[in-house]
Amino acid sequence: MGIIVQKYGGTSVADAEKIKRVAQSVIREKNNGNSVVVVVSAMGHTTDYLVKLAGEVSSSPCNREMDMLLATGEQVSIALLTMAIQAAGHDAISMNAMQVGIITESVHSKARIVEVKTDKLMKHINDGKIIVVAGFQGVTPSGEITTLGRGGSDTSAVAIAAALKADRCDIYTDVEGVYTTDPRVVPNASRLEQVSYDEMLELAYLGANVLHPRSVETAKQFDVPLRVRSTFKLDNMGTLILGVKNMEIYKPVTGVAEDSSQARIVICDVPDRPGVSAKIFSALADKNISVDMIIQSYARQSNNTNDIAFTVSLDDVARTLEILEPIAKELNASNVHVNDNIAKVSIVGAGMVDRPGIAADMFKSLADAGINIKMISTSEIKISCLVDKKDAKAAVKHLHEAFQLGCDEIAEVKGDLPNL
Amino acid sequence: MGIIVQKYGGTSVADAEKIKRVAQSVIREKNNGNSVVVVVSAMGHTTDYLVKLAGEVSSSPCNREMDMLLATGEQVSIALLTMAIQAAGHDAISMNAMQVGIITESVHSKARIVEVKTDKLMKHINDGKIIVVAGFQGVTPSGEITTLGRGGSDTSAVAIAAALKADRCDIYTDVEGVYTTDPRVVPNASRLEQVSYDEMLELAYLGANVLHPRSVETAKQFDVPLRVRSTFKLDNMGTLILGVKNMEIYKPVTGVAEDSSQARIVICDVPDRPGVSAKIFSALADKNISVDMIIQSYARQSNNTNDIAFTVSLDDVARTLEILEPIAKELNASNVHVNDNIAKVSIVGAGMVDRPGIAADMFKSLADAGINIKMISTSEIKISCLVDKKDAKAAVKHLHEAFQLGCDEIAEVKGDLPNL
Repeated sequence: MGIIVQKYGGTSVADAEKIKRVAQSVIREKNNGNSVVVVVSAMGHTTDYLVKLAGEVSSSPCNREMDMLLATGEQVSIALLTMAIQAAGHDAISMNAMQVGIITESVHSKARIVEVKTDKLMKHINDGKIIVVAGFQGVTPSGEITTLGRGGSDTSAVAIAAALKADRCDIYTDVEGVYTTDPRVVPNASRLEQVSYDEMLELAYLGANVLHPRSVETAKQFDVPLRVRSTFKLDNMGTLILGVKNMEIYKPVTGVAEDSSQARIVICDVPDRPGVSAKIFSALADKNISVDMIIQSYARQSNNTNDIAFTVSLDDVARTLEILEPIAKELNASNVHVNDNIAKVSIVGAGMVDRPGIAADMFKSLADAGINIKMISTSEIKISCLVDKKDAKAAVKHLHEAFQLGCDEIAEVKGDLPNL
Repeated sequence: MGIIVQKYGGTSVADAEKIKRVAQSVIREKNNGNSVVVVVSAMGHTTDYLVKLAGEVSSSPCNREMDMLLATGEQVSIALLTMAIQAAGHDAISMNAMQVGIITESVHSKARIVEVKTDKLMKHINDGKIIVVAGFQGVTPSGEITTLGRGGSDTSAVAIAAALKADRCDIYTDVEGVYTTDPRVVPNASRLEQVSYDEMLELAYLGANVLHPRSVETAKQFDVPLRVRSTFKLDNMGTLILGVKNMEIYKPVTGVAEDSSQARIVICDVPDRPGVSAKIFSALADKNISVDMIIQSYARQSNNTNDIAFTVSLDDVARTLEILEPIAKELNASNVHVNDNIAKVSIVGAGMVDRPGIAADMFKSLADAGINIKMISTSEIKISCLVDKKDAKAAVKHLHEAFQLGCDEIAEVKGDLPNL
């Protein structure tokens, strides 16, 4: 008999009927002979509603009071789910972060968990109780209520699983697992049985909204096996995320991802001297603008200048240009050029480390399809190419086929699939 | 400079606009040079909504989880009111019961407060902060969340005022104070400037929904001056409730109350022997049925039997009859008779203790109006007469005039006036 931590998101507990179905899913795991700790988010659109209320009383509510306000959403969910489990005849108890002792840094709105106390949890587990814990929230050593920011409930679940040395942390969501690519683009995309933490991290940073990178990082750090599966399709085992060393077999390429949410910015003809890049990217970092791919060309012999190109989120283009204008002037750059008609297409795979031909295969596949590559960047387990936005879907299809990622059946395409 | 505790009920914080008006009212007190601790209830119909949600997931949710659920309502209010006060430029902080340390018994859904910790409250007061505290909720020594039951937020406010040795506890509500009688019945009913704790208690038990008896009892116990006033009519000073010894002047009769929510039950011809009354009223108490007036007639010489009459809430009549049936049979009573066409009319006044003629004045006034008295019961500061329901309003008018309680102006009659 082991300990299983389950996590259910807001759409899984959006109304009374869904809460009752979740209760059944919890009880099923309990009946398998496991101790179960359940972490839940706020119901459906509760958080949005609370944020709207705050906006009506204050134009700039402080983070401490926002945390006080938002933490109520999860407390409602845990009480209701516990009632539903009890109504189905099982012993259960709800606990908020203060009661468990989910200790965080003293930072509001995006605190990091520093410790999860296990004494009360273990007491209830030993009493045979199903424990329902509020996700997304924490408490500081001095008793202040904090929240964990985006993806917070996933992180709560993984941290609790790590503290309890649980056998597994199951993240129940509205997708059926992690796919080789977006089934809306490639109908025969296949669900991955297993994926490594690092691959999942790359996919998450590339926009797969299945799991927040923080929760994957925490799972990797404490070696907690994670399973992503659908709340309402329990016959489907979803995708297991674990350390490479525990994986039995893997292909060189695991998935293909597309990200059309970025723009490329090029600063032309900046002098080739030390400190130029640092000046540019420090200025952007100071204003909290995340930069993704960065390419600096070889210095031209003729006039000893470079072009520096990078990508930023489309949302940040206006602010980026504002910051760059005085710097470009100071550096005597000839021009700042923006292209928002681009997409980043990436292949991800833990297996590519040992196989030097993968990058060449990718470039050849795109060339065969007549797709021009505008920028390239690589990491140990990822190769990304910037292409024209109009070519992105074709690029994904060709790469998915070239690396033989498809399955025989056509995936059923539903609403909120991961944006791989 | 003193400490003022203010309490605002659910209708006072029902929406964002009202919350902003409450913020102004709080700031006004702060600007008077006082330290302010504010206690708030859940917004408008939040509690009803949460109770409905619970009913959708469980037919009999347990009290512990109901407390977990309902306590969120006040946490939402305190965060929003704090944001509104901050938006108006004042330093403020919200605290739930766990953070303050409002310690209660380990009983769910109607816990009694055993201690209010003052260290954190005093720290924030000394820092010049306005403190916004969640009413209605408490926490047990082991960290369980409890609620205080009906009238809980009033009790929270009084308990905090007592612990802080506050100068006054102001209960803001949707009525303008305590009246000599219901202005809907007697248009020239006058607002009482002052009323004693004991008078207020009698009036509260008679159905005046201005303050819950528990909060008045707590105020009396710790000698906390209470003021009841309207949230939205700040020029009106409301009614001050305090100990008799602090009152400057009072009339023998303070108010006239009517209660039409009871029925009279008579058990006829029960044997006059020890233990009969105990048997009847223990059986009712066991089933949690509150009995109000009780009259036992002198034993008839002829057959050595009594009639026992008492009143119960109309809601409890069916259950009462169910309980009495076997007992009446066992006692050989001839009959159990119900009259639900009655009303209780009472006069209340701390001054009647020293004035023996008041009861006679009351009976004479009713006789002059041709109103028949069916039962009488008295306490030190109250005389109640049971009359036919059709005579109740006339009885109130006559008594109000007989004891000269009216004022010259006609009271403005609004929605939720106290049912005196």
